[in-house]
Amino acid sequence: MNYREAGVDIGRKASALRAATAKIGETYTPEVLRGMGAFGGMMLASRLKEMREPVLVASTDGVGTKTLLAAQTGRYGGLGFDLVNHSVNDILVQGAKPLFFMDYIASARLEEAVLGAVLASLAEACKAVGIPLLGGETAEMPGVYQEGALELAGTIVGVVERAKVVDGSRVRPGDALLALPSSGLHTNGYSLARKAFEGWNLAEPREELAGRTLAEALLEPHRCYLEDVERLWQAGVEVKAMAHITGGGVYENLPRVLPQGLGAEIWQGSFPIPPIFRLIQRAAQVEEQEMYRVFNMGLGYILVVSPDKVDEVGGLLPQSCPVGRIIEGPGVHLV
Amino acid sequence: MNYREAGVDIGRKASALRAATAKIGETYTPEVLRGMGAFGGMMLASRLKEMREPVLVASTDGVGTKTLLAAQTGRYGGLGFDLVNHSVNDILVQGAKPLFFMDYIASARLEEAVLGAVLASLAEACKAVGIPLLGGETAEMPGVYQEGALELAGTIVGVVERAKVVDGSRVRPGDALLALPSSGLHTNGYSLARKAFEGWNLAEPREELAGRTLAEALLEPHRCYLEDVERLWQAGVEVKAMAHITGGGVYENLPRVLPQGLGAEIWQGSFPIPPIFRLIQRAAQVEEQEMYRVFNMGLGYILVVSPDKVDEVGGLLPQSCPVGRIIEGPGVHLV
Repeated sequence: MNYREAGVDIGRKASALRAATAKIGETYTPEVLRGMGAFGGMMLASRLKEMREPVLVASTDGVGTKTLLAAQTGRYGGLGFDLVNHSVNDILVQGAKPLFFMDYIASARLEEAVLGAVLASLAEACKAVGIPLLGGETAEMPGVYQEGALELAGTIVGVVERAKVVDGSRVRPGDALLALPSSGLHTNGYSLARKAFEGWNLAEPREELAGRTLAEALLEPHRCYLEDVERLWQAGVEVKAMAHITGGGVYENLPRVLPQGLGAEIWQGSFPIPPIFRLIQRAAQVEEQEMYRVFNMGLGYILVVSPDKVDEVGGLLPQSCPVGRIIEGPGVHLV
Repeated sequence: MNYREAGVDIGRKASALRAATAKIGETYTPEVLRGMGAFGGMMLASRLKEMREPVLVASTDGVGTKTLLAAQTGRYGGLGFDLVNHSVNDILVQGAKPLFFMDYIASARLEEAVLGAVLASLAEACKAVGIPLLGGETAEMPGVYQEGALELAGTIVGVVERAKVVDGSRVRPGDALLALPSSGLHTNGYSLARKAFEGWNLAEPREELAGRTLAEALLEPHRCYLEDVERLWQAGVEVKAMAHITGGGVYENLPRVLPQGLGAEIWQGSFPIPPIFRLIQRAAQVEEQEMYRVFNMGLGYILVVSPDKVDEVGGLLPQSCPVGRIIEGPGVHLV
C-alpha cells in the first residue's frame, strides 16, 4: 500500500517532513513549473530549444544494499548524494548534463524521520548539481520489503548536443587513461562488504582507516565528477571516452565505452587505493582480480584522452592520475 | 547486489531473456540513439525542437503490492501494462504525451523467467503507446526484499506545449464530470484486496464475476486513457481538467486538479461499478465511503468539460459516463 492509498500523501505533506519539503522547494530552478502535489513534475525545456540537436539522456539506478548499512547505523544523510551523484556520473559518461531528478523510496513501513532524512539528502544532492528534484514516489509495502529495510532508487534525465555526444569512436591505441579518485565503495559491493564485516564493531575508530570508523568509511557518499569534467570541457580538452566505475568494476565498465577491438592496460600501483578496500579484502579473503570485479578500487571515473593532453588534464585536475593506456585487442588487463 | 556487481548484466543479456530483449528493441523509435548497454539511454529531442515552448512532464510510480498477487498466481504478464499505463495516465492529466519510459525491477533473487515476463510486458505496453523503453535497472537485494516478492517501479517522461498545459484554471461551477471506466482495481488497493480474499481460491470461476476467476479480475491490467483523450483533442473539444483516479480514490485525486474553492458532486448509480469491488466490500466488510477512498470504484479517469460539450464527448467516447458536476465549495461529495 502506498501513501496515496492510505489517503494521505505522507511522503510529501506530513508535518515532520516540512524541513525536507522546504529543501526540495529550494532545488526548484526558474524552469520548474510545478513540483510536488501535481500528478507529474513539470519543467520548461527552454534549454533544449536553444540547442541545435538536443539529445535526452536518461538513467535509472538504485543505491543497492548500502541502505542496509545506513539502517544499521542510523545514518541516512548520505544516501541522497549516493543516488544523485551515481546518476549524474552515469549520464556524464555520454557527455550529458543533468536536467532533473525523480526519486523512488519504498519500505515495509516508513518512519517519518528516516523519510525526512533521505528526502533532505536527495534535495541537497540535487541542489549541489543545480537540478530540481522534480518529483518522486513513496511507497509502503509490507509483504514485499523486510522490516527496517529501505529501497532507494531514482531516475535522472539530462541533455547533450548531438554533435557533442561522447561515444568513444575517436579512441585510438596509445590513448591515455586518467582516473579521478573515488571516495570509497560509492554504491557498489555492499553485499560483499557487509558480509566481510559481519560481527565487527562499525562504530570503533580504526588505525587502518586513519582513525575513521568502519561506518564512516563504508557510508562515505558517492563522489560526483560533473564539475571536474566541466572544467576540462571549458578548457577545450577533448575527452574521447569516459567510464563510470560502478558494479562490475573496471573490468565491466571500461569496455562499455571503448570501440570494438580495443582494450585497456591498467597500471597497478599508479593510483591510490582507499584503505577500506584492503580491509575488506583481508576480512573476506578476496582475490585481487575479484576485488577489481566487485569494487572500483579507487578508480572512481576514468577519462580517455590523447597522450599529448595528459599534462594539461593534470594541470586542470591535480587529483587525477595517469593509470593506464588503450591497447589493441579487447579486455582490461591489470599489469 | 545488482547484476552489474555480479559481473553480468543479467537484466539485459542472459540468453533466456533474448525474447524480452528483442521486444525492448521493437519499442525503439527512430529517435532512439542508443538503448540497452550504454550507461544512459539516448533519445533525440527533435519533437521538442518543433514546439514553441515545450514543457517536460515526469512521473515516477510503482505497481505496489499487485506484484505479490502476480507472484502468488504466477501471472506476471500484465504488470508491465499496469506500470506503463498508470504512468501514461498520470502525465496525461496535465496534457502531456509520453516520450519514453525507464523501468526499475528489484527482488531478493530474480528468476530469469519472471524477469523475462515482466520485461516483455513492459516492452509490449511501451510499444502500445508508441514510446521506447529507453533503459532501466535490475537489482537483486537479498536482505532488503522478502523471498519471492518483486518490486516494479518506473519513470515516464513526456512533453506538452506550455500553452496547452491542462491546469484546471478554467474549471467553473456547473461544469460536467465524465468518467472513463476502469478495468478493475488498476494498481491501487491491493493490500486491502489481498486481505479480503485471504484463504479464498483465486483460480475458481465465480458467478459474481461473470465466470471469471478472482485472479483474472484482480490482475486485470490498468487501462490507458491516452487514445481516448487524444480523440477529444483531435476533435477540438476543450478538456478543462482531468483526474487519474489512483490511490486515495476520487476523494483524493479529483481535488488535486480543481481550482481552490471548487469541489465536485459525484452521482451514485451513474456509472457501472465492476463486480470485483462489491465482492471485496462484502468479503472485507468495508464501508461505502472507505471503498471510494481506497479504490477507483469504476471511475478510472475523470474529464471536466463545459456542460454544453457532454453530448459531443459522449459521441466521441461512447463508453464515457456523465457522473457528476463541479460545485462551489471544496470537497468531493457522493450524492
